[in-house]
Amino acid sequence: MSGSLSIIGLGPGDIEMRTPQASATLAMATDLIGYGPYLDRVETGPEVIRHASDNREELDRARHALALAQSGRHVAVVSSGDAGVFAMAGAVFEAIEHGDPIWRELDVQVVPGISAVFAVAARIGAPLGHDFCVMSLSDNLKPWPVITTRLAAAASAGFVIALYNPQSKARPWQLGAAFALLRNILPPSTPVVFATAATRPEERIDITTIESADPARADMRTLVLIGSPDTRVITRPDAPPYIYAPRRSAA
Amino acid sequence: MSGSLSIIGLGPGDIEMRTPQASATLAMATDLIGYGPYLDRVETGPEVIRHASDNREELDRARHALALAQSGRHVAVVSSGDAGVFAMAGAVFEAIEHGDPIWRELDVQVVPGISAVFAVAARIGAPLGHDFCVMSLSDNLKPWPVITTRLAAAASAGFVIALYNPQSKARPWQLGAAFALLRNILPPSTPVVFATAATRPEERIDITTIESADPARADMRTLVLIGSPDTRVITRPDAPPYIYAPRRSAA
Repeated sequence: MSGSLSIIGLGPGDIEMRTPQASATLAMATDLIGYGPYLDRVETGPEVIRHASDNREELDRARHALALAQSGRHVAVVSSGDAGVFAMAGAVFEAIEHGDPIWRELDVQVVPGISAVFAVAARIGAPLGHDFCVMSLSDNLKPWPVITTRLAAAASAGFVIALYNPQSKARPWQLGAAFALLRNILPPSTPVVFATAATRPEERIDITTIESADPARADMRTLVLIGSPDTRVITRPDAPPYIYAPRRSAA
Repeated sequence: MSGSLSIIGLGPGDIEMRTPQASATLAMATDLIGYGPYLDRVETGPEVIRHASDNREELDRARHALALAQSGRHVAVVSSGDAGVFAMAGAVFEAIEHGDPIWRELDVQVVPGISAVFAVAARIGAPLGHDFCVMSLSDNLKPWPVITTRLAAAASAGFVIALYNPQSKARPWQLGAAFALLRNILPPSTPVVFATAATRPEERIDITTIESADPARADMRTLVLIGSPDTRVITRPDAPPYIYAPRRSAA
């Protein structure tokens, strides 16, 4: 059993944000596994086998990767951003826990990447300069009341909130409900940032307030960042404002 | 005014985790500013001026960097990990907000890095696979009751919690108080991870439970990760366990 499995975060899109560790690990792979559009971001020689799949069935994909590694292949499972944040690393370890005990002895490595939340933060200033939380708004894998409890707890306690998976065709009302809940907790002027395809050529970043935030602005590729009462906005002449969290919190 | 200011995250220590964007930006700097041990991690030609300082006086350092950029220099302010997470980016924007209005027109760029929390997560499995929060346990810049409110809110709502700045000589009791608070909320077997100097040669990672967590294990360089009731531990023969968050949350 001399195969291996690497779970690799490609970063947010701009290849200059992909770490040398990720690139070196990709270069040693015999097999690439992942969502098709992520695989398209990786250049390889023709001898590398690409196993593209759609963005569901993560657990099947994880089991496939483990079986290939068990058979002696050097497998790279790729995710956008960081592989550990609402991405493939969790699915792989879930498959290991419930799968063939021999999988616990495989050579498994997680290679971190720049997650979307840090790429977006860097584009607008320093909104994560004090305590923050990162949530998936998808209720595919957890009950909606768990999500509302977490949103209310985080906002009430003064965390900045980053929302992954804010909206999809199958989940059209959840972001609006989240904004409605947060309007009861946060000051109306609290900054809200919609960032789509951050660091890519088609990047679009819009800065608004919780009072004015329109859920229709978000899609599957959007990260939504919600400030805290401490969050500051610095206006600039002829340029978008900076958003940042002061280091000192008085709340 | 043709100077520039870049605020750069160097990543967690292993140079293979520093992004090409960070390396390219460092290569264009005429001046480096930062905490001495971080500057020591950057190789430059002899023509680059290094302004090392201790780890306090962040705001003075930020003003110095802005003044140099205003004078036409190409300044790189370096932080370990990600510059936006309890690091120099917040201080720079705070200085901009309260400083010379001309600073708002400077060419300022934030270059993200792999933050310690992602480096540690990758070393132990996928503990951030569902909702998590990131906090500084330092009460230098916020009142202690704000910290306890946030800890209780996050743990009660089921977030995994990553603690930066858990302990220092000047703050000897806070981590113990945090553990005591969390023991009233979390199951005794909830995993706790102490990770010191992750990805560096002197790396030390210890996995325990909230019931047994000893605050004396932490120092300034330690990241403390506290699981949620959903967090799973996968034991392995002759190897440390994996820690991960299942994608599905029933709580």
